[in-house]
Amino acid sequence: MTINRLLQRFGPALDETMRAVVARAADERGFRTMIEYALGWVETDGTPYRQATGKRIRPLIVLLCAEASGGDWRTALPAAAAVELLHNFSLIHDDIQDASPTRHGRPTVWKVWGTANAINAGDAMFSLAYCALARLSDDGLPEARILKAWHLFNTTNLELTRGQHLDMAFESTQSVDKDAYLSMITGKSAALIAASAQLGALVATGDVTLSEKFHDFGLNVGIAFQIRDDILGIWGEPDVTGKSAAIDILARKKSLPVLIGLERSATLTQTYRKSAFTSDDVEGVLRELEAVDARSATEAMEAAYFGRAIAALQTLDLARPSGTELSELAHLLLGRSA
Amino acid sequence: MTINRLLQRFGPALDETMRAVVARAADERGFRTMIEYALGWVETDGTPYRQATGKRIRPLIVLLCAEASGGDWRTALPAAAAVELLHNFSLIHDDIQDASPTRHGRPTVWKVWGTANAINAGDAMFSLAYCALARLSDDGLPEARILKAWHLFNTTNLELTRGQHLDMAFESTQSVDKDAYLSMITGKSAALIAASAQLGALVATGDVTLSEKFHDFGLNVGIAFQIRDDILGIWGEPDVTGKSAAIDILARKKSLPVLIGLERSATLTQTYRKSAFTSDDVEGVLRELEAVDARSATEAMEAAYFGRAIAALQTLDLARPSGTELSELAHLLLGRSA
Repeated sequence: MTINRLLQRFGPALDETMRAVVARAADERGFRTMIEYALGWVETDGTPYRQATGKRIRPLIVLLCAEASGGDWRTALPAAAAVELLHNFSLIHDDIQDASPTRHGRPTVWKVWGTANAINAGDAMFSLAYCALARLSDDGLPEARILKAWHLFNTTNLELTRGQHLDMAFESTQSVDKDAYLSMITGKSAALIAASAQLGALVATGDVTLSEKFHDFGLNVGIAFQIRDDILGIWGEPDVTGKSAAIDILARKKSLPVLIGLERSATLTQTYRKSAFTSDDVEGVLRELEAVDARSATEAMEAAYFGRAIAALQTLDLARPSGTELSELAHLLLGRSA
Repeated sequence: MTINRLLQRFGPALDETMRAVVARAADERGFRTMIEYALGWVETDGTPYRQATGKRIRPLIVLLCAEASGGDWRTALPAAAAVELLHNFSLIHDDIQDASPTRHGRPTVWKVWGTANAINAGDAMFSLAYCALARLSDDGLPEARILKAWHLFNTTNLELTRGQHLDMAFESTQSVDKDAYLSMITGKSAALIAASAQLGALVATGDVTLSEKFHDFGLNVGIAFQIRDDILGIWGEPDVTGKSAAIDILARKKSLPVLIGLERSATLTQTYRKSAFTSDDVEGVLRELEAVDARSATEAMEAAYFGRAIAALQTLDLARPSGTELSELAHLLLGRSA
């Protein structure tokens, strides 16, 4: 199984749902263009853009979990569109906060239209995520179930902002411990993947207890996923990731391998007192991380969270073949190179 | 009736509801402090702040409309808290977008904590607004009614971002016509007041048709309210408004009196081609606005929208005394001096 096969199966219906939602944003003086640009649908002038952007991991998890829990994946399309729009909202604001000039090889929204417009485009995308979720009402789903999905979405969004806050706070903090770091990535990254898995099962079945097991799966996958991102930010192949080599070291980012290194090496702690790194510093940090086995320690943590995710799946009696596909998708995310 | 009397009646329960919602935002490394600071509850260091900030117009409208429609205003507390939190979300982001250094005499959130944190604090406030609205589920309200309130909230939020987009787009547009301007203030300002009135009636009674009449009232009050803001931005007394005299002229803001002036005066059109204004220019603009009766024309439009609002109220058979209070509140907003 490849992600492409899942995209072939779910992509067209997902795309149709998202486009129907975004069409609600009136195209006054380029308003909708910014939103559609951020989603990778158009160029800055509104003409179609056809290269793939983003992997759509989260909505695929929603739809697979809906099916694997024994329901009809189509029921969960509004939730799938909602998590993808929410993810894109967070990217628009993240790129402003990190002053990132490009994403998926294109200028970021703030870079094209300025910070003020990008803040507003993100806010619009946030509203559209809720408009997408509200389409659960169109299919005659039980109202109590829709309300539960909505409540879950609300708490997830609050959790995202908590994680984002911690991530930014850590930039100006000399010492960050691993627990605080895990709490941060749980909010910033894993919470939405956990909610994706839970929403899929909840919307498709209405079974809260069952949906919580999916949450458990998603949370652990999400943490493992973020740890893999950290590994790629240091040791990823630029040709594959599309990012510069050791980019997180140059940015002095306190990602998990660095935190492990700082625990183990006084030399590294000394180096990280500097306010900026030269390329010699970057080389030195890479050598020191190697010397203290920071990479293998990080990969061991990734594998541990991944193991918990698979264990959570195994407690579930999943419908075939989507149960197998879900497990395969998780395996693809582990050890990925981009 | 004064707004203070309404605040005495509704304020404590509103405050309690908002505080219960905000308490859900974990106070990790100052995260909640930013939110509570923006709400005027604490100083930047988290110690209590006791001066009044903001007039709480929108939640008062929610609660008065709930009661005037024949329901129990307490039922609408979650909706009242939600619109107030949403309003505060929009202020945090507005202040970044306008680069405003102060609000209610205090430094703005971005000024204290920087743009990146302020974007995130706004996003958190947005999520908290939804968390507040979701508390409608706690009181055993019919689920279908809660879903309708949620859908209304979603479309309102999208409308807010459309209005904000137009407002920013107009800054770089040489000619803005009055219809485009009214469309902008409908989104940016009136939509939330309209939703406040509608939510109050909808939540308290579940009567959609009735709630739409309240929407009509709120929309017209909201437009009149914004037109009054435009008048104060030019002719407000600095001692009363807390803003500099003719601040909107100096900022070359294309507010309604200016648009009317531009329609009527070639001299003014010439002046507005300049990219920055001196104090002589400001004096000249004020004289020209006077010469073409722009103020009275603007006040006539304010009065017209106000008249429609009152007419909408009169089609309703409102419960006493809150129906009277609602009409009195609208009268207070018309012709106000701050």
